[in-house]
Amino acid sequence: MYLELDEQGPRYAQLLRALKSAILGGRYPAGAKLPATRVLARQLELSRNTVLAAYEQLRAEGFIEGRVGSGCYVAEIAQAPSAPPKRRTRPAAPLSRRGQRGQDMYDRNIPGRQHKGVRYNLQYGLPVTNPALSSAWRRELHYAAARAELDYPNPQGVIALRESVCDYLKRRRGIVAAAEDVMIVTGTQQAIAFAADVLLDEGDTAVVEDPNYQGARQALLAQGAHLLSCRVDDDGLVASELPTGAAVKLLVVTPSHQFPTGSVLTLPRRMELLAYADAQRCFVVEDDYDGEFRYDARPLAALKSLDSNERVIYIGSFSKVIFPSLRLGYMVLPPSLRNAFVAAKWLNDRGCPAIEQAALARLISTGAFERHLRQTSLALKARRAALLAGIKRHTGNHVQLADSGAGMHVVAWLPRLTHAQVERLIENARARGLGLYSINPYYMRKPSRPGLMLGYADLPPADLEAAMALLGRCLRELSDA
Amino acid sequence: MYLELDEQGPRYAQLLRALKSAILGGRYPAGAKLPATRVLARQLELSRNTVLAAYEQLRAEGFIEGRVGSGCYVAEIAQAPSAPPKRRTRPAAPLSRRGQRGQDMYDRNIPGRQHKGVRYNLQYGLPVTNPALSSAWRRELHYAAARAELDYPNPQGVIALRESVCDYLKRRRGIVAAAEDVMIVTGTQQAIAFAADVLLDEGDTAVVEDPNYQGARQALLAQGAHLLSCRVDDDGLVASELPTGAAVKLLVVTPSHQFPTGSVLTLPRRMELLAYADAQRCFVVEDDYDGEFRYDARPLAALKSLDSNERVIYIGSFSKVIFPSLRLGYMVLPPSLRNAFVAAKWLNDRGCPAIEQAALARLISTGAFERHLRQTSLALKARRAALLAGIKRHTGNHVQLADSGAGMHVVAWLPRLTHAQVERLIENARARGLGLYSINPYYMRKPSRPGLMLGYADLPPADLEAAMALLGRCLRELSDA
Repeated sequence: MYLELDEQGPRYAQLLRALKSAILGGRYPAGAKLPATRVLARQLELSRNTVLAAYEQLRAEGFIEGRVGSGCYVAEIAQAPSAPPKRRTRPAAPLSRRGQRGQDMYDRNIPGRQHKGVRYNLQYGLPVTNPALSSAWRRELHYAAARAELDYPNPQGVIALRESVCDYLKRRRGIVAAAEDVMIVTGTQQAIAFAADVLLDEGDTAVVEDPNYQGARQALLAQGAHLLSCRVDDDGLVASELPTGAAVKLLVVTPSHQFPTGSVLTLPRRMELLAYADAQRCFVVEDDYDGEFRYDARPLAALKSLDSNERVIYIGSFSKVIFPSLRLGYMVLPPSLRNAFVAAKWLNDRGCPAIEQAALARLISTGAFERHLRQTSLALKARRAALLAGIKRHTGNHVQLADSGAGMHVVAWLPRLTHAQVERLIENARARGLGLYSINPYYMRKPSRPGLMLGYADLPPADLEAAMALLGRCLRELSDA
Repeated sequence: MYLELDEQGPRYAQLLRALKSAILGGRYPAGAKLPATRVLARQLELSRNTVLAAYEQLRAEGFIEGRVGSGCYVAEIAQAPSAPPKRRTRPAAPLSRRGQRGQDMYDRNIPGRQHKGVRYNLQYGLPVTNPALSSAWRRELHYAAARAELDYPNPQGVIALRESVCDYLKRRRGIVAAAEDVMIVTGTQQAIAFAADVLLDEGDTAVVEDPNYQGARQALLAQGAHLLSCRVDDDGLVASELPTGAAVKLLVVTPSHQFPTGSVLTLPRRMELLAYADAQRCFVVEDDYDGEFRYDARPLAALKSLDSNERVIYIGSFSKVIFPSLRLGYMVLPPSLRNAFVAAKWLNDRGCPAIEQAALARLISTGAFERHLRQTSLALKARRAALLAGIKRHTGNHVQLADSGAGMHVVAWLPRLTHAQVERLIENARARGLGLYSINPYYMRKPSRPGLMLGYADLPPADLEAAMALLGRCLRELSDA
């Protein structure tokens, strides 16, 4: 009997694997006597103790019987099916419908930063790097790690963090909420996934803005929602056009700063939207993903602050304003939904990690978080100004800006180009080290004019200026061609 | 017009809230002129600047029109529905079926440590406190926080951690897996929730052991699974009794250390279980929640190591062996399921936090994790010995032990008592500062004899000895009564 060791890990484990595989594969049939330990040791150039230990373990696991050292026999176990796995071509058990939908979406849309490695990457969603925040975060993590609860966390979230969130929302977003209304989640994505779980059965109708945040759309589609969309203009969602035929169960909107167009939902439309939700008896998810950053005025109050009938599920994320790999966000829930959402969290993951929650609570309560927001706001304002100046200087009359004075990106419409030309523009720019992104993926129906999402959070002003010079050059080349 | 300020937060924000609420409530109808800022300032004893700022913000948000300082009028907005919210008694939109099932379970089973605060709490699931681990963890967190990727994490998990998990599994659990087979999740609960999501449609059949881990059962029931169970005896799951009538799509088992009875699945039954899965074309979730801790022998290899037909989804958790509030675990996935599970993770939460993953990868690769396991094993072994000695000394012939020499708890059967007596025992013990837990909640059909789950991880040997003395006293009182 020839045993091949796979040279991975300790010799003892290699031998054990080889022996098991020989037994399971039928090379040592039931009742066969194993070679004497001395013989095998010499043959494989192992110490006899190694062989003894492997035999002992085989015996402990029930593969062999007898006394190690005198005579061991392969036990009467049901050996592995004799057909080798390769031959079996029948498909494995099918996925659930939801599992299949999710996999199809994922296969079409492998995540990852598309233009990673280019010199100027204008990808939306990259965070502002703030070394002061990084050290504050490190300090708070270290502090919290010594003190946080080690036992299972409260699924709804650490109370200190929920209280900090309430303070913050009252001060900055006009929302009056109690800690019991707040649930800590891993971010916007989980919040929307839970909303889909808790409120939508397969085939139920949900409405999103068009264009919209892909992650939200995908979570609803994975759940099996029948998805309708509503147009957006410069005043945000056109609430008068919300669908009235179907029984809508959920609306997902971005009133403070429509994603991705940047428009701000006007007050009359906010009221209209709430009246619609009340008439439809449906819930509204308000995704306030960057309502924090406005450069020309104080941030507008959230839709939630107008919600007298408890129709609005407010969601906020710390990922955009701290860093995306943090994975913490929150929901403000209407009382009627609180238990159902906490149950969803509890069934899904038992609650967010306690140390990070405690660290974040202190980051907020010590004021470091708002200092970071102020610093980030200033940095973003300067970056935005550099980007806009660069566009003005370098792109001639190609670009029509949709400028809402908020957020971490602007949309540059290119009304004089075709969609195909913009695709070429993106390719050419990439070859020159400039990462550009079409706005098209956010649309359910292709927009009438092509446009670019210009994310500016991650680049210093000088780079943004240089990036716009490059963009200008690419645009000229395209016109000349 | 009388405006009442709510005394919460800055005066400016109080005034803004009060004015909005007056406008939305119809107390200032559309077209009404707001009081002059000087007048309002005097009336409310505010500075005029505060009033000016509030008016400016109202104008920015579209509530009023005109020029602040000369004359402002309430805008023609759709005011809040005139019916006060209290009157509206019709129910809100219904939950989804899944949302309703989850809420019902949660309402019945509010989580939380039942006997928190008692002197000796024998709750299963409390972690071993290890100060050396706490400082190692703090150190690694601090190190990782300075270096981890800030951008969105890989939804499948940080590669360094997945590689560390593979090394660990090869060395300790006999599983040969590549990093691409591993997905990092927040723990056992999320792993099982994803398995339900990806593999079960509403009404599909799943099989669990009886008794079983509640969290797994609840995740399957929330998904709408038709749940069957299979009996467990001293050799683990009775594989020959697995249901053959229905088309089973998923099995959830604990072969290394049946939860909660502690029995270990024998090799012939492991082979039988795998053959069953292959015949049924279903998948098997192997929940290896504490396979790590065996005191009388080397840990048995995992079921996954015998899985030549890629039917087994292996799940492991760091919560039990590090601390529960960490929220990190992992799955080893068959290649055919990998994309569907990564998609589920991506749609649910985009991936686990990067800093913690990087810290854990280093905790493993530096050897600190296995040092902790060794220390914990020694501590658990001593605690277990103290518990068993205490039982022997103090509980007479009341207790029949189910002892598998593994894990973090033992089951004490009380064959001479009725279920009602054991309920009284638990109450009496609690009054004396001893937290005891019935094994009943883990059973789908009430077991023929009552039993207690004795978790010993959290208490030093002397306390366990004292706790057993108390148990003995409570047992005697019960017999005397």
